[in-house]
This record gives sequence, structure tokens and C-alpha cells, in this order.
Amino acid sequence: MLGSLPVPLNTLPSDNSAMTVPDQRRCQVLVAARACFARAGFHGASMQQICAEAKMSPGALYRYFPSKDAIIEAIAEEERGNAANCMALLGGPGSIFDRITAVAMDYLRQTLDPDTGGLMVEICSESIRNTAVGKRFHEIEMDVRRAFREALQQSHDAGEIAADVDIEVALTVLLSVGDGLVMRLQIENDFDIESIEPYLRRMVVGLLAPPQPGTP
Amino acid sequence: MLGSLPVPLNTLPSDNSAMTVPDQRRCQVLVAARACFARAGFHGASMQQICAEAKMSPGALYRYFPSKDAIIEAIAEEERGNAANCMALLGGPGSIFDRITAVAMDYLRQTLDPDTGGLMVEICSESIRNTAVGKRFHEIEMDVRRAFREALQQSHDAGEIAADVDIEVALTVLLSVGDGLVMRLQIENDFDIESIEPYLRRMVVGLLAPPQPGTP
Repeated sequence: MLGSLPVPLNTLPSDNSAMTVPDQRRCQVLVAARACFARAGFHGASMQQICAEAKMSPGALYRYFPSKDAIIEAIAEEERGNAANCMALLGGPGSIFDRITAVAMDYLRQTLDPDTGGLMVEICSESIRNTAVGKRFHEIEMDVRRAFREALQQSHDAGEIAADVDIEVALTVLLSVGDGLVMRLQIENDFDIESIEPYLRRMVVGLLAPPQPGTP
Repeated sequence: MLGSLPVPLNTLPSDNSAMTVPDQRRCQVLVAARACFARAGFHGASMQQICAEAKMSPGALYRYFPSKDAIIEAIAEEERGNAANCMALLGGPGSIFDRITAVAMDYLRQTLDPDTGGLMVEICSESIRNTAVGKRFHEIEMDVRRAFREALQQSHDAGEIAADVDIEVALTVLLSVGDGLVMRLQIENDFDIESIEPYLRRMVVGLLAPPQPGTP
């Protein structure tokens, strides 16, 4: 599940000083809105709370976003961009096991901000209730699933992945692992995320690689 | 994360007719409360909504539970019992890989009720915010973690688990996988849960077993 990146990576120029004032203000609103949504939910957080968090007057905020829906849509668009950036690692060098681990670690590192990491849980909650917000984020996840499916299918065809692996079931399991880790790292927030990497890789290999003789 | 079992397994006698009327009414309230909490959150759901869902008058409901907190505490107690039942499988026969897979599948099957499965996400949300409800359910999870730790430590000492596995990191990863699968199965509710079992086992083996020569 997507949506807990603390900073809108794709809209933020690498050189901050290159941002125009309206861009900076827009970004400021979105960072504030993520924190409010993470704390109080999409339904629970009010435009007033977002104004207070962003330290902006309602008049100033409404100049950038006419409604809460417009803010949610802007966050969804950021997530689409962030997801595309993460997915770029899937097409990189290395084995499929290394690439999946790299994508997962990249994503996990980006979700660590304690102020907004809880947003992922709120998005899941919306997805389970199948609300408009839930459906919007589900579309983005479909893009992620498509990118993973393509990479898995290529490795499957090349014999890198065990022949008996059902790509769709493996996809569901992999996405679950990502969701669970993001959520867990929010709860155990003193946990060293980097310690997970070798374990994650072992699970990915276990899930996908042809088993070696002697495997229990 | 715990909390999405549709029926209070430990408090429900196997022969339903053996329940006293107060027991039945109490059970009826808890089933209704789980559905309301799953839909609207612990904070959002009102005693009025729980009465309506349980088809009971406030007067009748208050005879069993004086407050929403008392209902939440009763659900937490049910979860403690359910968790203990699940954990019993950890002490059964078979390899550690088979036993962990059995516990996970048992738990996943119990969380499939669409009316109350969303409760787990609400509990996670409370845990991330570190509310009183979150802390209460966190205590129960500590019991689960303790049971898993003991089983993993024994298998580690016996050489069934790879020597370089850090038990605490492996525990965090295993619990994350459980959380993620419960959540994902709520979102993809047309998914056949049984299809997951062999994949889950492969991941558990990959995570814990000593790698065989030739493993990528």
C-alpha cells in the first residue's frame, strides 16, 4: 500500500532554492496535510487543522487547494510519481531477488517519517472500506503491481524464478510483505530498518527461487 | 497485529446451546461492537451504533457493559484467548517451518470475516498513535512475540534455524508478514486464502533455514 512518503519526491526539485514561492507553499500544504491525515484520518482531519499545521490562513491555503479532495488528489499524484521512481529500480541490474529487495528497502526508507508514516494505515483503512479515497490509491497500486508483474514474468520466462510459482499469488504475497513491514516499522519505531535487508532478501529468494536439494 | 477475529473463539462454547442467555447476549454485543469498530474505528463508533448493530436497547446493553472501554477490554481479553489458542500450534509436531506456517494459516483463516476483519487495521492505527487502546493490544502482541521467540530459540539451539539468524529481527519480519497478509486479504477479498500456504512456507524456510549450496 502506498501513501506514506514524507516528502513529495517527484515534485520537489533536487535543488530546493529552484522552487518558486507558490511551489514551496503548495509543498508546505501537502506536508502538513499528510501529517494531519496520518493523525486523524482522511475523514477526521479538517481543512482548519491543515491550515494550522501548515501555519497558513484559510485564504492563503484555498488559493492552492479549493477543497480537501483537491489536497488528497495532489497527494495521490505525488504517490504515483514516487511509485514510478521506486519501480525504476526494478529495471536495474542484478538478479530479480536483488532488485525486489532494493525496491522494498528504498520504499521502506522513504516511509520512516514518524509524522506521516501512519498515513499508509489510513489509506489501507480507506481501501478496505472501498471509499473514493481508497479507490484512488488502489489505482496507483495497480500501476505498482503491473510493474512487478512484468519483472516477475520476465524472470519466470528466463528460469530465474521457480517454474511452479504462480505470479499473481506471489505478487499478492510480496505486496503484503511490503505493507506489513511499513506498518510494523511505524509501531516499532526504534527498530533499525537496515537490519531487515538480508532477511528480506532471504524471504524473496525463498518465495521465488527454484528450491535447492536439501531445502526443508 | 491482533484483533480481527470475527467470533470470540475462547468464550464461545463448542456447543452453542450450552451458552446461558446472558452469555449469548454478551457475545451478541461483542460481535456487534467488532463490526462497528471495524467500520468507524474505536473512537468513531458510538454506544448508540453498537446498540443498533446488536439490536438491543441501551438499557439492555449497559447491563452487560457499562462503557465503550469495558467493551474494548472484553474484546482485548477475547484476543488474548484467541492468541493463546493459535500459539498452541507452535508447540505441536513437525518442523519449525511447518508449525509457523500452520499458526499463520490458522490466524489468517480466522480473520477473513469481511464485517470485522477491518478491525485489525483500526488496532494498528491505535498502536501507531500509541493510544490506550493501542497499548492494550500491544500487550497481547507481546505474549504472541514471547511464544514465537521461545519456539524460534529452541529451533535455533537445535540447528534447525540458520546460526546467523537474529531471532529478534526474524520475529519482527515474521509478525510483519502476518500483519501484511491479514490486511491484504481484507482488500483483495476475492482472493483464495488457501493458495497462499505453500508460498508462506517457502518464505518462512527462506527466512530461517540454513541456506543450501546453490541458493542465489
